[in-house]
Amino acid sequence: MNAIRIVGEKELRAALDLDLSVLDCVEDAFVALATKAVAMPPILRLDIPAHNGEVDVKTAYVPGLDSFAIKISPGFFDNPKLGLPSVNGLMVVFSARTGLVEAVLLDNGYLTDLRTAAAGAVAARHLSRADSSVATIFGAGVQARLQLRALTLVRPIAEARIWARDSERASRAAAELAAELGIAVRASNDAEAAVAGADIIVTTTPSTAPLLAADWLVPGQHVTAMGSDAEHKNELDPRIVAMARYVPDSLKQVRRLGELHHAIAAGLVGDDAIFAELGAVIAGQAEGRTGDVDITVADLTGTGVQDTAIATLAIARASASGAGATFQA
Amino acid sequence: MNAIRIVGEKELRAALDLDLSVLDCVEDAFVALATKAVAMPPILRLDIPAHNGEVDVKTAYVPGLDSFAIKISPGFFDNPKLGLPSVNGLMVVFSARTGLVEAVLLDNGYLTDLRTAAAGAVAARHLSRADSSVATIFGAGVQARLQLRALTLVRPIAEARIWARDSERASRAAAELAAELGIAVRASNDAEAAVAGADIIVTTTPSTAPLLAADWLVPGQHVTAMGSDAEHKNELDPRIVAMARYVPDSLKQVRRLGELHHAIAAGLVGDDAIFAELGAVIAGQAEGRTGDVDITVADLTGTGVQDTAIATLAIARASASGAGATFQA
Repeated sequence: MNAIRIVGEKELRAALDLDLSVLDCVEDAFVALATKAVAMPPILRLDIPAHNGEVDVKTAYVPGLDSFAIKISPGFFDNPKLGLPSVNGLMVVFSARTGLVEAVLLDNGYLTDLRTAAAGAVAARHLSRADSSVATIFGAGVQARLQLRALTLVRPIAEARIWARDSERASRAAAELAAELGIAVRASNDAEAAVAGADIIVTTTPSTAPLLAADWLVPGQHVTAMGSDAEHKNELDPRIVAMARYVPDSLKQVRRLGELHHAIAAGLVGDDAIFAELGAVIAGQAEGRTGDVDITVADLTGTGVQDTAIATLAIARASASGAGATFQA
Repeated sequence: MNAIRIVGEKELRAALDLDLSVLDCVEDAFVALATKAVAMPPILRLDIPAHNGEVDVKTAYVPGLDSFAIKISPGFFDNPKLGLPSVNGLMVVFSARTGLVEAVLLDNGYLTDLRTAAAGAVAARHLSRADSSVATIFGAGVQARLQLRALTLVRPIAEARIWARDSERASRAAAELAAELGIAVRASNDAEAAVAGADIIVTTTPSTAPLLAADWLVPGQHVTAMGSDAEHKNELDPRIVAMARYVPDSLKQVRRLGELHHAIAAGLVGDDAIFAELGAVIAGQAEGRTGDVDITVADLTGTGVQDTAIATLAIARASASGAGATFQA
């Protein structure tokens, strides 16, 4: 018999919030990915077009960690019509020594939200100008809010703009974020104007066509594109990838899923071009921003190593506080 | 809040045994795979060589089923030294309509054992001679035992032989199976002799080099090879694939993982050769055995569609009997 800890979303929310410890945990994961013999297989993807659904399964083994996680993320995009969230899912934590199940984290996607937002802040911490104070967010969903909140942990953000296709949602998000963060946040329905004067731009949409034009950008800006996690998704004008200092989370993944593959498809970048990954920049093995005039781009497709890292942290917190139920199996 | 049923191995064993209902369930799954728009992505595989471990993740969506399963199978081969079984794992059941988690089946590999043994019996039901009475099993582990038990459900097996590298294990398995099944079962340490006169031969080993020679086989015999589920595993002399009526569970998988890929590598079969799958034979869309003199071979690598099928059956049984605990997440 093996004692398995089962922890639900509510308890995970109580145990873990978007703070610097989560950022550091995700930062360590990127460093491990770049510097250790991490095993991170390609994402398993199941499509269920009959119900407008898709499921991603991600995992990674990080040498030195006692556990690894397998994360299952279903996204069913007709769910809102049923009054249900689109994204759900869970993480299963296994002993890296024996393969026994240690925990089932029924987080409904919460841990993914956290580790995704944390990655944006980690990218900004290492690629944006230290004095970045104006942030523009594309999108008005959960990630739009969390990305802005995460940025405020690492940069002196004093002003933010929210652009979204649905301007009512943008206004609502702006009002709520202004109240929550105590900074000036306004909605914009002009993407180009929203980008002008911004130090950091974060795109968080499921767009399938570029939202951010290359000629809107000026020297010194940093862009994090985190919406594209599938072949058909695309937020950046492919010319941005070609002209900027481009830093992917996982080169193998962005060639297939990220903004890079649209730049390759457009013939702007060779399909064998090498770009140093975020972890290598963090570890000091590669250069990110070289000065105040660079335009930097982080392309985040989401990696299994982040899932293993956040799950390991979550289960440590949950165990310490006795959260969840124990099941004998 | 979503009510999730958590069911452990003991309750699953009580709810589901290796019987004709399980065989029929797996048979239906193969038919669906061959005749419906089943979505079955490539297996996700994570290797942890530092701990002699590997993890397979399989899934499939079957149109018409309300649920789909994702099965996670860790195999950590140093576990027996720690007094733990090598193979563990669980299945997570999701609504095919919303992606919400419906159940977590902490089966420690039991459902995989069942659906794998059932597939062997389904193959024998459709490929072996109806009067098959002598079975030879290569291997002496859990699958060796279950495969023989499953064969007795579909063919009038009166005599069985167990060959294994470790003759002591073979003797123990033979004695236990004789007592359990009430038929003559003897251990053999001569593989060629064990095959002579057998109607059905099932190979259940993790061998990486052929155990069954082509010139041992005679017309009328049926072979099920179910040990090879990874690139380096190989139980059959590749010439057997070339000379027999060869039926894979999933053509896409056997080209990469099964006995077929060794025959392709040996230049005996073209890498684009088409073979009708077991489901097509069951559905009557393709011919399996055409007469008493054929040598037939079923190559079973294990498919996600079997996992979804057995998980769907298991959760229906568990729900009906109220087995397991309910967790709100």
